[in-house]
Amino acid sequence: MSKPKVFEKPIGVKDYLPGAVAKLRHIERQVLACMQSWGYEQIMTPTMEYYDTVGVASSTSDQKLFKLLNNRGTTLVLRSDMTAPIARVVASLLKQADFPQRLSYHSNVFRAIEEEAGREAEFFQTGVELVGDSSAEADAEVVALAIASLKAAGVDRFKIAIGHVGFLNGLLEETLPGRNEEQEQLKGCLLGRDYVGYRQQLRELSLEEPVQRELEGILRLRGGQEICDQALQLSADATAQASIRHLCEIWDVLKAYGVSEYVLIDLTMIGDFSYYTGMTFEGYAADLGFPVVSGGRYDNLLAQFGRPAPATGFALKTTRILELLGDEADNGTPRTLIAYNAAGRAEALAKAQALRADGISVVTERLEGLTGILAEAADLMDQKPFEHKGVKYTALVTYFRKGIKGGSAT
Amino acid sequence: MSKPKVFEKPIGVKDYLPGAVAKLRHIERQVLACMQSWGYEQIMTPTMEYYDTVGVASSTSDQKLFKLLNNRGTTLVLRSDMTAPIARVVASLLKQADFPQRLSYHSNVFRAIEEEAGREAEFFQTGVELVGDSSAEADAEVVALAIASLKAAGVDRFKIAIGHVGFLNGLLEETLPGRNEEQEQLKGCLLGRDYVGYRQQLRELSLEEPVQRELEGILRLRGGQEICDQALQLSADATAQASIRHLCEIWDVLKAYGVSEYVLIDLTMIGDFSYYTGMTFEGYAADLGFPVVSGGRYDNLLAQFGRPAPATGFALKTTRILELLGDEADNGTPRTLIAYNAAGRAEALAKAQALRADGISVVTERLEGLTGILAEAADLMDQKPFEHKGVKYTALVTYFRKGIKGGSAT
Repeated sequence: MSKPKVFEKPIGVKDYLPGAVAKLRHIERQVLACMQSWGYEQIMTPTMEYYDTVGVASSTSDQKLFKLLNNRGTTLVLRSDMTAPIARVVASLLKQADFPQRLSYHSNVFRAIEEEAGREAEFFQTGVELVGDSSAEADAEVVALAIASLKAAGVDRFKIAIGHVGFLNGLLEETLPGRNEEQEQLKGCLLGRDYVGYRQQLRELSLEEPVQRELEGILRLRGGQEICDQALQLSADATAQASIRHLCEIWDVLKAYGVSEYVLIDLTMIGDFSYYTGMTFEGYAADLGFPVVSGGRYDNLLAQFGRPAPATGFALKTTRILELLGDEADNGTPRTLIAYNAAGRAEALAKAQALRADGISVVTERLEGLTGILAEAADLMDQKPFEHKGVKYTALVTYFRKGIKGGSAT
Repeated sequence: MSKPKVFEKPIGVKDYLPGAVAKLRHIERQVLACMQSWGYEQIMTPTMEYYDTVGVASSTSDQKLFKLLNNRGTTLVLRSDMTAPIARVVASLLKQADFPQRLSYHSNVFRAIEEEAGREAEFFQTGVELVGDSSAEADAEVVALAIASLKAAGVDRFKIAIGHVGFLNGLLEETLPGRNEEQEQLKGCLLGRDYVGYRQQLRELSLEEPVQRELEGILRLRGGQEICDQALQLSADATAQASIRHLCEIWDVLKAYGVSEYVLIDLTMIGDFSYYTGMTFEGYAADLGFPVVSGGRYDNLLAQFGRPAPATGFALKTTRILELLGDEADNGTPRTLIAYNAAGRAEALAKAQALRADGISVVTERLEGLTGILAEAADLMDQKPFEHKGVKYTALVTYFRKGIKGGSAT
């Protein structure tokens, strides 16, 4: 273990300079305003949570959690998502509040192991939870709101893939009854979108021809509304059938929202959180391999906090969206420089105050002995952009007065 | 160590419900906009920093730092302030940027031990750093900006006490040369505003009468501009004299800003951070015993990151200001409820979209079989506030249409 260099920051975490912060803040503001217009109200929870409750419920694998001890010897974690903390709040501080509850958040979350892969150990998510409503309307609402949120964030070209964990679970239980390990292996391949591996696994299972065809068949279950009909043919399992019917209802509501053009059904998609119990979805931006939003239904999580209730929600991967949007030409705020000498100080600072009250960004600077040069420069640069000490200005105002130096007049 | 109850959060940290978040966000927005109007641009740094660099430089005592290990065995800390991280950024990522640099932030910070005393382990600060300018103008700028920021946050009645660590250091070195331990004891009393303890300590030192009077005299050095003159009389030490002259200059600039009514000079004030090297200040709101802002000059910190430079800044105690402002009547956002049945769904959701585009907050709800009741209710409640499932609405719009159930028409 070598000592880090004095100016290093830890691996996997980032500094955001003003241009990036302005962009991140813009996304945050637009998306939260969008969520508010759908009736979602923002909450905030602590960075640290108990490992035994929120840490365990969060469905982030143990080695990905940042852990620390408080001074009583209890293990804490840095939150790895916001879904489990919000479930905790709904079951405690908001225990008396009626269902459904519509809550939003913008928050940093932490994942320990990912720094190894060059991924970020701390990143931002902006999302919602709709708690206490099990209907297809509720699932469709969060999908439609995810679409509206992506647009609000400035992402124009994207597709939302929706699936249902119940369909795959039902199909696998029908075809490989009780063979949990093999079921998990197949699901692992689908989670990693490793379709070659999935086919390979299937062959190694030496299944009967029709069963093998059935399980291979789901790889083709990606497309529009027609997929629902095909899926109903594929499996007679009751869970699988109920899941598909729920998905059909969601599709109907999404059509009524007028957003079905953004959506495709993908029954190979199972979502990357173990707490999902129903519909799951992921959003992919054009030309990007990783999701910019993911969400789904989690009807068992709230029970872990003592208030059983159905729930559905999503999280935008805000940090990824920031990268996606790239660096626009950062013109920054138009800024005025007010230069003055001691005798002009009171006038100069009063002018600065007046301009700031009008929403203009003003930097003040006292200069002595440069009066002539600056006055000349002022004429030249009048209302034109110029640069001074690395900062761009759109205007210069000077207050150089003859008078006592130091400006300490009574 | 007992297992926490399922819905507990760690001691010393807080959940913020929508009303509190709205208020916190309002303060954050207003204060950052104020800082931007003074030319300060916002940056963000990671929650975790290396213990060996930022942790040590932060001037938070070791037992107050939250520490954790990364998976390489290096000790990390949760940032305890933003001054040290920003110094790191100025010396690394912003190494090429000219001085002065004006940077602002709004951030959560962490202090471990304070949870014991019922204080918060995680809280918000909103502040600025002005790096690369050693002038009295720069010190006065951050004091004047602190005053403007408090006003922007909604704090109306407050006083800013300014002091100078150089005056006290000079005076103590003059009167108790080389007696470092006794100097620190006396400073400790002043830091804790324990004037009784200070007098007690003085008596125990058995000093000569004039020296004792001199050291007792500083307790009276609190007031307006006249204090500077009295202080110049009190000590002939060169450091003390230079400190007072710098403070006089700051006062002159604050007069030019037109804010001297908010300021008093308090030469017993030394600031609670060991990295302060010059002017320090604290702001007290009416009727509150704790500071709502603190700041000062720290000319040696940047050198620890390899880019020596003078610097000055402050942090608002945003969480305290939030408590100070209390809970205003939270009317929340005016909200419209759109209720519909399956046949009215497409119309209803299109209406919701149109209203949301106009900035109106809309919640949609599908209801079946209640058409008659709701239509009647709609007439009664037309445009009047009403409550439904615990949420207040200002308007109800209904789309109950006769038609096929399920709304799944082609």
